[in-house]
Amino acid sequence: SLLHSAQEIEKPIAGTSFPLQDVLEAQQFDRDLLNSIFEVAQQMEKVEKDSTSSRAHVLDGFLMATLFYEPSTRTRLSFESAMKRLGGEVLTTENAREFSSAAKGETLEDTIRTVEGYSDLIVLRHFESGAARRAAEVANIPVINAGDGPGQHPTQALLDTYTIQREIGRLDNIKVGLVGDLANGRTVRSLAYLLARYSGVKIYFVAPDVVKMKDDIKEYLDSRNVDWEESADLMEVASQCDVVYQTRIQRERFGDRIDLYNEARGKYIVDRKVMDVLQPHAVVLHPLPRLDEITIDVDTDPRAAYFRQAKNGLYIRMALIKLLLRGW
Amino acid sequence: SLLHSAQEIEKPIAGTSFPLQDVLEAQQFDRDLLNSIFEVAQQMEKVEKDSTSSRAHVLDGFLMATLFYEPSTRTRLSFESAMKRLGGEVLTTENAREFSSAAKGETLEDTIRTVEGYSDLIVLRHFESGAARRAAEVANIPVINAGDGPGQHPTQALLDTYTIQREIGRLDNIKVGLVGDLANGRTVRSLAYLLARYSGVKIYFVAPDVVKMKDDIKEYLDSRNVDWEESADLMEVASQCDVVYQTRIQRERFGDRIDLYNEARGKYIVDRKVMDVLQPHAVVLHPLPRLDEITIDVDTDPRAAYFRQAKNGLYIRMALIKLLLRGW
Amino acid sequence: SLLHSAQEIEKPIAGTSFPLQDVLEAQQFDRDLLNSIFEVAQQMEKVEKDSTSSRAHVLDGFLMATLFYEPSTRTRLSFESAMKRLGGEVLTTENAREFSSAAKGETLEDTIRTVEGYSDLIVLRHFESGAARRAAEVANIPVINAGDGPGQHPTQALLDTYTIQREIGRLDNIKVGLVGDLANGRTVRSLAYLLARYSGVKIYFVAPDVVKMKDDIKEYLDSRNVDWEESADLMEVASQCDVVYQTRIQRERFGDRIDLYNEARGKYIVDRKVMDVLQPHAVVLHPLPRLDEITIDVDTDPRAAYFRQAKNGLYIRMALIKLLLRGW
Repeated sequence: SLLHSAQEIEKPIAGTSFPLQDVLEAQQFDRDLLNSIFEVAQQMEKVEKDSTSSRAHVLDGFLMATLFYEPSTRTRLSFESAMKRLGGEVLTTENAREFSSAAKGETLEDTIRTVEGYSDLIVLRHFESGAARRAAEVANIPVINAGDGPGQHPTQALLDTYTIQREIGRLDNIKVGLVGDLANGRTVRSLAYLLARYSGVKIYFVAPDVVKMKDDIKEYLDSRNVDWEESADLMEVASQCDVVYQTRIQRERFGDRIDLYNEARGKYIVDRKVMDVLQPHAVVLHPLPRLDEITIDVDTDPRAAYFRQAKNGLYIRMALIKLLLRGW
Repeated sequence: SLLHSAQEIEKPIAGTSFPLQDVLEAQQFDRDLLNSIFEVAQQMEKVEKDSTSSRAHVLDGFLMATLFYEPSTRTRLSFESAMKRLGGEVLTTENAREFSSAAKGETLEDTIRTVEGYSDLIVLRHFESGAARRAAEVANIPVINAGDGPGQHPTQALLDTYTIQREIGRLDNIKVGLVGDLANGRTVRSLAYLLARYSGVKIYFVAPDVVKMKDDIKEYLDSRNVDWEESADLMEVASQCDVVYQTRIQRERFGDRIDLYNEARGKYIVDRKVMDVLQPHAVVLHPLPRLDEITIDVDTDPRAAYFRQAKNGLYIRMALIKLLLRGW
Repeated sequence: SLLHSAQEIEKPIAGTSFPLQDVLEAQQFDRDLLNSIFEVAQQMEKVEKDSTSSRAHVLDGFLMATLFYEPSTRTRLSFESAMKRLGGEVLTTENAREFSSAAKGETLEDTIRTVEGYSDLIVLRHFESGAARRAAEVANIPVINAGDGPGQHPTQALLDTYTIQREIGRLDNIKVGLVGDLANGRTVRSLAYLLARYSGVKIYFVAPDVVKMKDDIKEYLDSRNVDWEESADLMEVASQCDVVYQTRIQRERFGDRIDLYNEARGKYIVDRKVMDVLQPHAVVLHPLPRLDEITIDVDTDPRAAYFRQAKNGLYIRMALIKLLLRGW
């Protein structure tokens, strides 16, 4: 299958069009496509480094609209930096839900039909699952899903996978511990989907009882013959894994049950003791923002890769924007 | 008079200065000036289309400040896209009323005197009628009124008129049905003013009783010998007109009288039945945002011109910005 | 000492690096550094004037992030205009406190570590004193403090000092009246620090009793042998001074004591009567926004320099941004 023959596939030819019209969900990406995108992302490290000595012009004259119906400064700035590092320009809206005609009752589809007239690419963050797909269905320009509610956040999944590739050097034959809020965490769910593209992957789920990984992902992994197990022993998992992917327990999911939140929150903390058992080549990732689920004394450890991971978001987004607008 | 001698007027000479220092109200534009602006707007279609292959430099180094005291994402993005498509740059404020020193009690005049030091052009959206004129009186740089409360929104009026020119091919000898909230609708009032610049125009007013067109406009049309009539029969009007201009019933105008709002809202809907009687060459316009006063099954009809109309806002704004900063 | 030997110091050599890595507080600037920065600021007047005929490229490809945890449109637009007038680009966030991951509990340090990956310079406005220093400690790129709560606002202090230099022609041997809210006014406190760099300075404090200048500044001025006195007679002070620096009484500092606020607010007003006793060469400054502590009939007096002062903020910020990113 496509998933096991990367070596037989020729690289995309420069100038040919990107196979995707929009970036909507992690499932759009098979391993060949991921590999090719990751090569472009790595080239983007050089484009970015050179930008202050010689501004890039690859997207000169292109205009990206960032429509954020739900504020997310980190994601928005990452996309806008990506566009500008490539020489493109940005129209921005920080809080479209409150400020736009959506407040007057306009449908998302109507907003998209208008905004596509003003730009060449739409980056959409929305509070409703499926919003990005609805936008892409009416838009005649590319749409990138920058997170749609409990749904997808595909560029985060790509940057997570890219970070493992960059930090560990491979995506086959790795052991990954997913830690924290596995029930609500959009990122760990998408990452599990993408890891299933690779062979020899073993996934450990380490989650408080109230936020355990849901069955649909477990069944999906089974269907792809991906080995997984649940564990309550973070130290044991950390000592085994190449990657410990920690996540924040999301208070907003607990409603009035602050007691449950507090119990879940303190259960699995990545601290110096965890780092002591982590293998020398292994890394700790986190999608950020972080509260106290990774203690700050871990930050100076070279295996603390979460800020490098955030930076990789820039390269992945530069790659995707360039590919959607200019092709390979 | 000026209004009837377009053919005798020479075109503006390239490089000569634009006769207006600011764009404050629809009344500033006579038919010759409209015609000349519309020619520039049409050239802007090409500038925009070429922008991604060759970025425009006509406003290189120019800086526009968009001061929005009342959020309006559609209008703001349209102006900012216009500036950027011309190669200029933008300073933006999405919600100046809440975020700026206005919250500390600073006058608009003081804000303008400061912001004019940071930019070459101010686009002002404000909640008070007359704000744009007050801004223009103190500013030494051009001011464009992007809507001042119940007052004026001249670029909307220009883009509406331009759209009729582009869609119908003329502005003389046309029949236009203005439908919906004619009492509060800033756009229909301004459009009526501009249509009075042309000859052989017939205007139909189709509005629920509580939001009928006010007498001042009727008297103005009489004074310009523009033929108008009121009608309660949307089907009949639609079958006669070249342009059906539908508008949203604005709930915010009804206060507690939700019953009146609901009655007004459902009364005149542009749906497939209306489209069935509309002439083949005629078009439906709407300033957007739309709720359900045009049903979405109308969208695919080629005579549904409202998204093309929104796009024309870009070209009109490109033309005005270019003319104010660079002349003809 | 360094402070008294400007004439013996050689000018910085073009291309050498700026001695500061960050701009955090007024105390970082001695008089030689101020003089050199002011020379660059004056050159920036020409760069700005030429920008629309020939866009500057000195910061082509550079990206500045404006992180404003507390809205301040005036300051934000001034910094963003400065960056764009130099040819650089901006990532902006108007209200980071509410919109960013700070709302989810992320520390400032984590936010800075992420944003530094997306930009070349961070301009930070924050509600907590010391925030800019904390940001600078973790950032590997320059940080400019654009005001941190009751703490510092060093670019305001520099632009105030630069304005006196430009308007009066010198900073030694001047008499300056500081008027209004001297207890809470960040700007007058910073200005007092900077004026202490110069010789022969005399400072008058004219403040309502409830907002008098605090002892720490008075002691600092004593330690630098700067002559100062308190006065309740604005007319007398105005007739003596080269500079009358008026400030706004800040209502937000009075809590429920509206009576005290109203009493303080009306006490010292700069009006035509004050202008009548002001010397011909003297000027009135104000950090803006202004309420009614300077009456608007003063605005047309050529000695009303507060809007020129606001404009000088652009030149000072252009100078600092250029120096931090490119050196002398």
